[in-house]
Amino acid sequence: MKSEALVLINGERSSNINVMDRGLHYGDGVFRTLKIDSGRVRWWADHFRKLAEDCAALAIPCPEEQVLVSEVNQLAAEPAVGVIKIIVSRGAGQRGYTIQAGAETTRVVMGFPASRHENQDVRVRWCDLRLASQPKLAGIKHLNRLENILSRSEWTDPDIAEGLLMDEAGFVICGTMTNLFIVEKNKLFTPDISRSGVAGVTRGRIMRMAKQRGQTVHVDKITRERLLAADEILLCNSLVEVWRVAELEESYWPDAGWAEKLRSWLNENN
Amino acid sequence: MKSEALVLINGERSSNINVMDRGLHYGDGVFRTLKIDSGRVRWWADHFRKLAEDCAALAIPCPEEQVLVSEVNQLAAEPAVGVIKIIVSRGAGQRGYTIQAGAETTRVVMGFPASRHENQDVRVRWCDLRLASQPKLAGIKHLNRLENILSRSEWTDPDIAEGLLMDEAGFVICGTMTNLFIVEKNKLFTPDISRSGVAGVTRGRIMRMAKQRGQTVHVDKITRERLLAADEILLCNSLVEVWRVAELEESYWPDAGWAEKLRSWLNENN
Repeated sequence: MKSEALVLINGERSSNINVMDRGLHYGDGVFRTLKIDSGRVRWWADHFRKLAEDCAALAIPCPEEQVLVSEVNQLAAEPAVGVIKIIVSRGAGQRGYTIQAGAETTRVVMGFPASRHENQDVRVRWCDLRLASQPKLAGIKHLNRLENILSRSEWTDPDIAEGLLMDEAGFVICGTMTNLFIVEKNKLFTPDISRSGVAGVTRGRIMRMAKQRGQTVHVDKITRERLLAADEILLCNSLVEVWRVAELEESYWPDAGWAEKLRSWLNENN
Repeated sequence: MKSEALVLINGERSSNINVMDRGLHYGDGVFRTLKIDSGRVRWWADHFRKLAEDCAALAIPCPEEQVLVSEVNQLAAEPAVGVIKIIVSRGAGQRGYTIQAGAETTRVVMGFPASRHENQDVRVRWCDLRLASQPKLAGIKHLNRLENILSRSEWTDPDIAEGLLMDEAGFVICGTMTNLFIVEKNKLFTPDISRSGVAGVTRGRIMRMAKQRGQTVHVDKITRERLLAADEILLCNSLVEVWRVAELEESYWPDAGWAEKLRSWLNENN
């Protein structure tokens, strides 16, 4: 593991975290995954805004932007770093669920090699696991990610890039690590994530960029049948950017051009 | 913090854990909280059986019992230790939800001072948060505990010992850190936890001890109205053992004798 050299914990190079950290004990924190392009962080303003929102939602004091920027840039300057992950947890605490006053937030900034497979056509599958409904946590990119792990462990075939998840009511919500858009008659739709799922930065950018072009992205309930009948299915996150679903179990989609359109939107105004 | 001296990580005295541990990144692990009584661990067989079950449910290799026994006893022998917490996580991994083959489980054994407030009459309240329904995780004492933290943060009054939680359908499930029993006409009932909540060891012991005495504990759906009409309301976990609910917002219960009965059951056959 090279993590020794490429991790900053509260600003110090370290590969170890206090065992009493509430991130470990309870998943009591939030995270971000950033793409680094030639030493430069992409979409920082969006990522920091979302980090601050997620911290606020859990009443975790958010690190100051300038402190994080400096730490992120320090790792982004390393040639081996193509991805940076930030974890902000409520910090080390005593045993027990009670949030103690005055606990100091832990910030972890980690550098990783670039991820592959961005902007591709992909093959996907359905997951059996149904996402639980928790309005108090939906949208937040928090550290309680067992649903993602269990659903991702439903397949091992490396040719399958992603699994699609429904909620208990049978509405399609997202992939295990991506947000979802569908296109119907030249209109963009994305699932309602007020009860489960994560409000990803890439999803947010696509919605904003669409609006700037006079296109509305409709937030809607999307059934399995409706998804299968869509003209195009797109998946996104900050690393893979936009994946076009070419194959979903027994169904196939020719390229209708929306993936390229969304990619070009995303890559303006970095 | 005295944690330096009272923590074993994979058998070594240490207060730091690898920052790449999946327990931190995803809450990808399980835990146990044990009471230590005069240097002796209470209900070890029950705790280890449950730990092994929970590990199996998440496909995490469980540490060998003899290894854990030796580590737990090492800390239990310290006079300052009245509580031991065990965390077993899937271990350090690469970035991403995929479970890598061959990752080595992390086991953390931590000693803490004794907890207070065992076997008391308590005042409790209702929590606003409704527990999400996730059959694939219900029952497991895993590290995804944000619902517990958010619900525990709903009150700060130190005279309120616990908050009661309902699921989305309005059925009472548990407290933020306890399991629940009610008594109706000399019959014991406990909520169905197949969709949310934790199958605690103390709950399991009470059910087993009841059975040995020819008493059945009925697993049932319990509404708020039914709970309020019960003859007795009891809360339990391995540290507080059995709390009798004396007061719940505007309702009061005189002691009907069941708390003492359950305590005597629990304390046989240690």
